[in-house]
Amino acid sequence: MSNQHPQIAIVMGSQSDWATMQEASQILDQLQLPYHVEVVSAHRTPDKLFSFAETAEQKGYKVIIAGAGGAAHLPGMLAAKTLIPVLGVPVKSSMLSGVDSLYSIVQMPKGIPVGTLAIGPAGAANAGLLAAQILAAWDTELSIRLKAFRDKQTKVVLDNPDPRN
Amino acid sequence: MSNQHPQIAIVMGSQSDWATMQEASQILDQLQLPYHVEVVSAHRTPDKLFSFAETAEQKGYKVIIAGAGGAAHLPGMLAAKTLIPVLGVPVKSSMLSGVDSLYSIVQMPKGIPVGTLAIGPAGAANAGLLAAQILAAWDTELSIRLKAFRDKQTKVVLDNPDPRN
Amino acid sequence: MSNQHPQIAIVMGSQSDWATMQEASQILDQLQLPYHVEVVSAHRTPDKLFSFAETAEQKGYKVIIAGAGGAAHLPGMLAAKTLIPVLGVPVKSSMLSGVDSLYSIVQMPKGIPVGTLAIGPAGAANAGLLAAQILAAWDTELSIRLKAFRDKQTKVVLDNPDPRN
Amino acid sequence: MSNQHPQIAIVMGSQSDWATMQEASQILDQLQLPYHVEVVSAHRTPDKLFSFAETAEQKGYKVIIAGAGGAAHLPGMLAAKTLIPVLGVPVKSSMLSGVDSLYSIVQMPKGIPVGTLAIGPAGAANAGLLAAQILAAWDTELSIRLKAFRDKQTKVVLDNPDPRN
Amino acid sequence: MSNQHPQIAIVMGSQSDWATMQEASQILDQLQLPYHVEVVSAHRTPDKLFSFAETAEQKGYKVIIAGAGGAAHLPGMLAAKTLIPVLGVPVKSSMLSGVDSLYSIVQMPKGIPVGTLAIGPAGAANAGLLAAQILAAWDTELSIRLKAFRDKQTKVVLDNPDPRN
Amino acid sequence: MSNQHPQIAIVMGSQSDWATMQEASQILDQLQLPYHVEVVSAHRTPDKLFSFAETAEQKGYKVIIAGAGGAAHLPGMLAAKTLIPVLGVPVKSSMLSGVDSLYSIVQMPKGIPVGTLAIGPAGAANAGLLAAQILAAWDTELSIRLKAFRDKQTKVVLDNPDPRN
Amino acid sequence: MSNQHPQIAIVMGSQSDWATMQEASQILDQLQLPYHVEVVSAHRTPDKLFSFAETAEQKGYKVIIAGAGGAAHLPGMLAAKTLIPVLGVPVKSSMLSGVDSLYSIVQMPKGIPVGTLAIGPAGAANAGLLAAQILAAWDTELSIRLKAFRDKQTKVVLDNPDPRN
Amino acid sequence: MSNQHPQIAIVMGSQSDWATMQEASQILDQLQLPYHVEVVSAHRTPDKLFSFAETAEQKGYKVIIAGAGGAAHLPGMLAAKTLIPVLGVPVKSSMLSGVDSLYSIVQMPKGIPVGTLAIGPAGAANAGLLAAQILAAWDTELSIRLKAFRDKQTKVVLDNPDPRN
Repeated sequence: MSNQHPQIAIVMGSQSDWATMQEASQILDQLQLPYHVEVVSAHRTPDKLFSFAETAEQKGYKVIIAGAGGAAHLPGMLAAKTLIPVLGVPVKSSMLSGVDSLYSIVQMPKGIPVGTLAIGPAGAANAGLLAAQILAAWDTELSIRLKAFRDKQTKVVLDNPDPRN
Repeated sequence: MSNQHPQIAIVMGSQSDWATMQEASQILDQLQLPYHVEVVSAHRTPDKLFSFAETAEQKGYKVIIAGAGGAAHLPGMLAAKTLIPVLGVPVKSSMLSGVDSLYSIVQMPKGIPVGTLAIGPAGAANAGLLAAQILAAWDTELSIRLKAFRDKQTKVVLDNPDPRN
Repeated sequence: MSNQHPQIAIVMGSQSDWATMQEASQILDQLQLPYHVEVVSAHRTPDKLFSFAETAEQKGYKVIIAGAGGAAHLPGMLAAKTLIPVLGVPVKSSMLSGVDSLYSIVQMPKGIPVGTLAIGPAGAANAGLLAAQILAAWDTELSIRLKAFRDKQTKVVLDNPDPRN
Repeated sequence: MSNQHPQIAIVMGSQSDWATMQEASQILDQLQLPYHVEVVSAHRTPDKLFSFAETAEQKGYKVIIAGAGGAAHLPGMLAAKTLIPVLGVPVKSSMLSGVDSLYSIVQMPKGIPVGTLAIGPAGAANAGLLAAQILAAWDTELSIRLKAFRDKQTKVVLDNPDPRN
Repeated sequence: MSNQHPQIAIVMGSQSDWATMQEASQILDQLQLPYHVEVVSAHRTPDKLFSFAETAEQKGYKVIIAGAGGAAHLPGMLAAKTLIPVLGVPVKSSMLSGVDSLYSIVQMPKGIPVGTLAIGPAGAANAGLLAAQILAAWDTELSIRLKAFRDKQTKVVLDNPDPRN
Repeated sequence: MSNQHPQIAIVMGSQSDWATMQEASQILDQLQLPYHVEVVSAHRTPDKLFSFAETAEQKGYKVIIAGAGGAAHLPGMLAAKTLIPVLGVPVKSSMLSGVDSLYSIVQMPKGIPVGTLAIGPAGAANAGLLAAQILAAWDTELSIRLKAFRDKQTKVVLDNPDPRN
Repeated sequence: MSNQHPQIAIVMGSQSDWATMQEASQILDQLQLPYHVEVVSAHRTPDKLFSFAETAEQKGYKVIIAGAGGAAHLPGMLAAKTLIPVLGVPVKSSMLSGVDSLYSIVQMPKGIPVGTLAIGPAGAANAGLLAAQILAAWDTELSIRLKAFRDKQTKVVLDNPDPRN
Repeated sequence: MSNQHPQIAIVMGSQSDWATMQEASQILDQLQLPYHVEVVSAHRTPDKLFSFAETAEQKGYKVIIAGAGGAAHLPGMLAAKTLIPVLGVPVKSSMLSGVDSLYSIVQMPKGIPVGTLAIGPAGAANAGLLAAQILAAWDTELSIRLKAFRDKQTKVVLDNPDPRN
């Protein structure tokens, strides 16, 4: 990871969400994008959530990736407190497979958007990718790395057309 | 409604939730319990939500009834900021009939409870009743009024046993 | 657990629900609140359910925590037979992950409220906490213990901000 | 309807359920089977529910049809209190289309069965038919009437094979 | 099991359903009720399904218990071909946990009823019990055995009131 | 519609399903493909269902389109009785929006396939189209008409790119 | 597998889908029908998807079987690009059990049909069977093999009527 | 709307989606952000979808907002063909209330992200807002307009605290 000040923050509701959210970090590592990682619980540390959101802009974050499960309020409350784009990752819940997490994150009312990704690790990885795509609009080098990343991804499938091998 | 300072606050995420939440107020009126009513939007007025929760105890509230729809974060965030019992009412949403509201309110993580009622007006009415039941434990007169309320409710059914009339 | 007569009863539909409901008891232990524990099956021991509800007030209970799974009738039938606040815990069912338990408990008709918590162990723990919050309104010492409990809960998250550790 | 003492009782949780449950009565009318109709609310009149169930056998009922909506406890609690077969009809609920009613009625635990029919009016009509089929095993004349009923039902479809007419 | 000609048939869509349906047979064994067991696949042996239904009455069956999973057509098609009461058991499906089985069995159209039990083994056991309750209306000895069965079931719960033992 | 003997049969469970299934006929009219239309109820006319399936091949049908709602057994039972491809259309049900119809049709067990289309009128229209596509493999003229149909469909969208007009 | 040029293509969104889709190939092997197998990812190799669809007709395919999971776009996009009948197999997803896959495949808009099979391996096997049934209309020998296949399938059930063996 | 070349494209699967998607355009109008609007059907005009995606970058789009209903493939296929961030809006479907649209859009596999908003008009409005927030990171004036927009939104709620007025 480079020395560059991170423009991306990955936050999550609890330590156990890291199993899911590390997929986002792995994507950013591959794209050589620095990021900040922190546990911010909407329900256990509401004041920290607010101060995190209030200082996010001055810290230079351009995108916030927020993962949470169950009654997942973290992404939506961050979005309510900042104008930085918030990408929400519904973490799979032990009881309802993450449908509760998905509804709690995606069904935001008019006025406060959260860009929501798929439930679980695939969604976390894609949050990393979407964050990179957002930054790439103004970063030609990142744009080139992203293109290479996707070309490689395509090549892996093209090179193995027969699933029986 | 008596002159007594209200021990119950009824808050809701938007003005349109009043159509649902007024059922709570009607129950409290019948039980002669004063209450405070206010719109507090988790997403549009997050700071107000926090200051409301922070001052709720000193204002003398003993129960907070909170109604919200969709990604309904109001009850859970209030519960995260106060130790006053929070009763959550999932307001019916236009797209998912309130299943999203229900999951967002009831599926709170360990550590921060919200006592959740049924989706829609029946839930709002029952939030009023449950608030009264909570207060009645230390208020003999209210307890008597509640018993009378329920007896009357029972009598209405007993007096009309034939649904064809 | 102190010698004090318990103001909280934890009941459940079957012995196997204890795996879930013991979370409520553990919370109450931590808060030094005595409680009564008993299996009361709505379907196998309906008469016991009624006599339990009818004598609950004179036994001094101020809150009843009731857990059940599937067509979970225990919380709602208790609520129909007493004015003591009933907190319902939907136990995870083997077939429908507790969605059936949740709907059977939370969707009570107007007139008889059950304050419903999350499906499974988190909901049971939160039922314990909500019961304590209800009692704390008239118990300053409990209120202080609850504040300490929550402060500690917050501190655990604040002290471990990096999920990678 | 004949003068015969009714062997079938149709009960329902509230007066508004009659709009659904009258379908059962209409089927029984067509089959010339007498029946008793009564509102018995599990939540508003729990004691009546118990006394109804306790006296049902001596009153000569052989089948009980019970309709309810939402957290529909009536069929299951009747079944817990009597050995007379209980047929449950999930009444459509205003919020969840009767999925809550269905789960609350059908997902009974091992030991206490409720024979559950479809959600809404079709289920009520079928409860009437199933009750008749149960009685017909020991009533040759009823068996003949049932056979005629079904033949007629078949004939209506056979006589109108072209849906465009 | 007695020599008596069986009045109950337990049929199921595939051999693998026996793991679920044997719960029905165990209940009937306990109640000393003879029964017939057979695999009848609606989709693989539709002609056998029809001939089974057409000869069921003359074979002396008074109740048919039918279990099936997925697009579970067996109970409904049997019900369409006979006037003997059909009790349907939704077998848990590998993909949708039996919600598909439940909907396919319970949502029968007006005119052809299937008395549906809970998803999985509990439902199979309850189908056995409900079949016995149906027969008991005309069989005093069975009625006594059923009462004893249920008393024992109640006693087990009453004798173990503390779930921690 | 031409004089050609129809290779396509459109059947449905009840007359009311025609409101949905006529979409299939309209598509076939546009493609100048003759078809047979008939009400065949799996539950009310099971024998007709069987005789229809048994004679379908000799009548020259190459594709059967079957629409049904609720516990929709018609498509699956036809498929069990013939080797002609069966296309199933889940008709919207009044209670569960057709999710029950969809599960009952699509979740067929291994061995008996039903090619299932979308719930409601769109699915009926697409059943007509898929039937035509199946026949077109051996009918060059039909293939040309289908190509023209789709080109026109594409052109309508291309010609109106601005939704505000 | 014979030397005959394959008329059936089995494609899938990722290599991991083979565990499900091989069921289709096994059925086709049993029916002595050659087929082509290939990984074609709608999202990772969209251009390959288009070229595959555009050349499918000239390659002689008469049926395309397409399996995919999650936001399963492969079957629908193939259907949008060719007039060859497309049979869709919803692969079980890790989070939502394949309900997402099912909805993404079956809920196609009017104009572009996908014949959808059951979620998971049973659906894959049935896609193979339905493809064979489609081809059999113009292939007497295949028709005979299919009849034999189904007769054998029926015989297996008929020969083992007692599930306890 | 200013003369500036639009950096935002709003596309949708059919003309009827405009009723939903115009909410996005209204937000952008309020924020004085120009945008392009076009119907691009994934299923009826797949080639147009591809050429749109392939030329989007050179046309200067920085964000694509894509709305679709049912088996909603438009957002995901655009995302597969471009590195410009795609925001997906699930349009309410007539049968499944948009749950199908939501799953088809949000459950994208690892590698191709779509930032998904709420079902229906609220989601469309929020897609407009999120697009603006993404652009605002590099546009101070827009950032100020966004801040004013949100302040006004907050003020409306703060100025009307009593829902009864």
